[in-house]
Amino acid sequence: MPELRQEPITKKWVIIATERSKRPSDFAAKQQERRGGGFCPFCGGNEGKTPPEVMAYREKGTKPNTPGWWVRVVPNLYPALTKTEAQNSEENNFYQTKPGLGAHEVLIESPEHNSTLENHSPEHVNEIFFAWRDRYKALSKAPGIRYVQIFKNEGSIAGASLEHPHSQLIATPLIPPVIDEELKGARDYYQQHGKCIYCEIIERELKAGARLVASNYDFLAFCPFASRFPFETWIIPREHQAGFDLVNDDQLQSMSGLVQEVAQKVSGLLNYPPYNMILHSAPAGHSDSAYYHWHLEILPRLTIVAGFELGAGIMINPTPPESAAKYLREENAKSASENEPEKERLAWRQIH
Amino acid sequence: MPELRQEPITKKWVIIATERSKRPSDFAAKQQERRGGGFCPFCGGNEGKTPPEVMAYREKGTKPNTPGWWVRVVPNLYPALTKTEAQNSEENNFYQTKPGLGAHEVLIESPEHNSTLENHSPEHVNEIFFAWRDRYKALSKAPGIRYVQIFKNEGSIAGASLEHPHSQLIATPLIPPVIDEELKGARDYYQQHGKCIYCEIIERELKAGARLVASNYDFLAFCPFASRFPFETWIIPREHQAGFDLVNDDQLQSMSGLVQEVAQKVSGLLNYPPYNMILHSAPAGHSDSAYYHWHLEILPRLTIVAGFELGAGIMINPTPPESAAKYLREENAKSASENEPEKERLAWRQIH
Repeated sequence: MPELRQEPITKKWVIIATERSKRPSDFAAKQQERRGGGFCPFCGGNEGKTPPEVMAYREKGTKPNTPGWWVRVVPNLYPALTKTEAQNSEENNFYQTKPGLGAHEVLIESPEHNSTLENHSPEHVNEIFFAWRDRYKALSKAPGIRYVQIFKNEGSIAGASLEHPHSQLIATPLIPPVIDEELKGARDYYQQHGKCIYCEIIERELKAGARLVASNYDFLAFCPFASRFPFETWIIPREHQAGFDLVNDDQLQSMSGLVQEVAQKVSGLLNYPPYNMILHSAPAGHSDSAYYHWHLEILPRLTIVAGFELGAGIMINPTPPESAAKYLREENAKSASENEPEKERLAWRQIH
Repeated sequence: MPELRQEPITKKWVIIATERSKRPSDFAAKQQERRGGGFCPFCGGNEGKTPPEVMAYREKGTKPNTPGWWVRVVPNLYPALTKTEAQNSEENNFYQTKPGLGAHEVLIESPEHNSTLENHSPEHVNEIFFAWRDRYKALSKAPGIRYVQIFKNEGSIAGASLEHPHSQLIATPLIPPVIDEELKGARDYYQQHGKCIYCEIIERELKAGARLVASNYDFLAFCPFASRFPFETWIIPREHQAGFDLVNDDQLQSMSGLVQEVAQKVSGLLNYPPYNMILHSAPAGHSDSAYYHWHLEILPRLTIVAGFELGAGIMINPTPPESAAKYLREENAKSASENEPEKERLAWRQIH
């Protein structure tokens, strides 16, 4: 019997379609394609094939846009938003436009084409998220920027057009509607209860336990009550922090460990599914908000956003989050390989 | 240079990413898989393999759930919503649930597995949309139903799990958020301007011309100003009608002709792409609204809803609607085959 569940922050409903109830093995056919060959502009040695880097963590003494880096950030060659002025287009008092001002960067997570979040050394995963934070801070301060979205598309079904492991940052001149809805819901809750709704969710999930996936001293991983996607998992800091720029070094290391653990569980359970990982943070300049709370959402893409979901805005999820969390809890987190060369590389590098 | 455009009804922004500007041929690799063999429960002769029909247009004297039909409606075997009572689940003053009460029906558009909207006879396309209206009216009156969503997923990328041509109806116990946002925007506009915003759009699109795709006496087909998807096309009645149940027989025939024409143009231009076709109508019991206006949205699925789109709620569309409309205007609408057997079948059938 299907059930409608309401997401407590935005008040959006989802359908938990238990008639279609799905176990992990039912999704096996959806696993992402294996990695192929061919030229890759993100691989170490091909630095000249991307736009010049805006930042890199690289060995001391190596020059920009040459090998020697382990995490590298470049402008997107096909940006969704740019720093240039917009052309004139039809605009009047009815149809409104805005220049597509902003930034769109690619964060190349490793020089190694076949590396993954799961098989990196923990130290390397740290480096990726330190780079997230560095670029988050830099872009948040850029003129005209209202929001910085960081996300990772893994697998072509999840929107990755290049296989090489990378994240993306899009800095927008407006607060995106998804974040705006979260802000409104969180503000309403704060006004009524004097408390951050995300802090409330953390307490409730710790107490209930049924939707917990993993946790450590600083972070919690759980499948949200009104999960829109099968095996959807949120990773959230236990301490109240509205903006991602507030996370300190120790906490970021702690987060990296938990993200890798969850990624290993998801990939082990579902055989390396396509997924999106998305940072939700307070708008630029509002990191001190008392009611918002940054978090990461991991969304395995095992179902399809089809006519009903697009037309109604209601997601249909065939896997109740309590089942998803149980499967994920019971799955061992393990690396696909030891990835020794990377360990060695990181062992002798200079501190950036 | 990318441009942000605001959808005038819901005020949502989209990014028209001209840096990525795409012509129809750039999407060629995304065409849907060709149809295969295997057992199909929707084919004529397999009526016993579906739940019992709730309605069929069939030859006089033939029995329900036997051959002799040309359009047939059955309950979905894996319903997203059902008529049964929900189980008890965790619910408290924080986490809210609702029983998944409603209906989920499949409208089998033909007994022929390989038929399509494009190659049906015009008479058969009429029959499909007459069946849409019949089931729309019936489900709108069911107890507890607030909204009836009709949609068609064509191609597996667009969410069709069975190849056999079919549409679906989901009747929901709440007004879906997408419709709710449209209603709010349309109501605001009506209060400020004393006019239906969709009627205003029709006037403006007829005058501007650049986004028109096709039209006839009763309907208009155009690519909306803030198209979220490449080649997104809306089909809208020129006469103000809030609810789909208000469309009369002549108008429905007129709509069928235009839908088929647009489907032929889209499929000819983009080589049978996956698409969703979605009815947007007033909520049940509100067909007399002065400010809402029903319409059909055809959404070719040539791009991927990825991390940014999910996390921000902002779609990135690489094809400006003015280019899309020009390509579609210039594409001949033609049937892939004459489909003679179907014509014969329809020629001698009794009026339902």
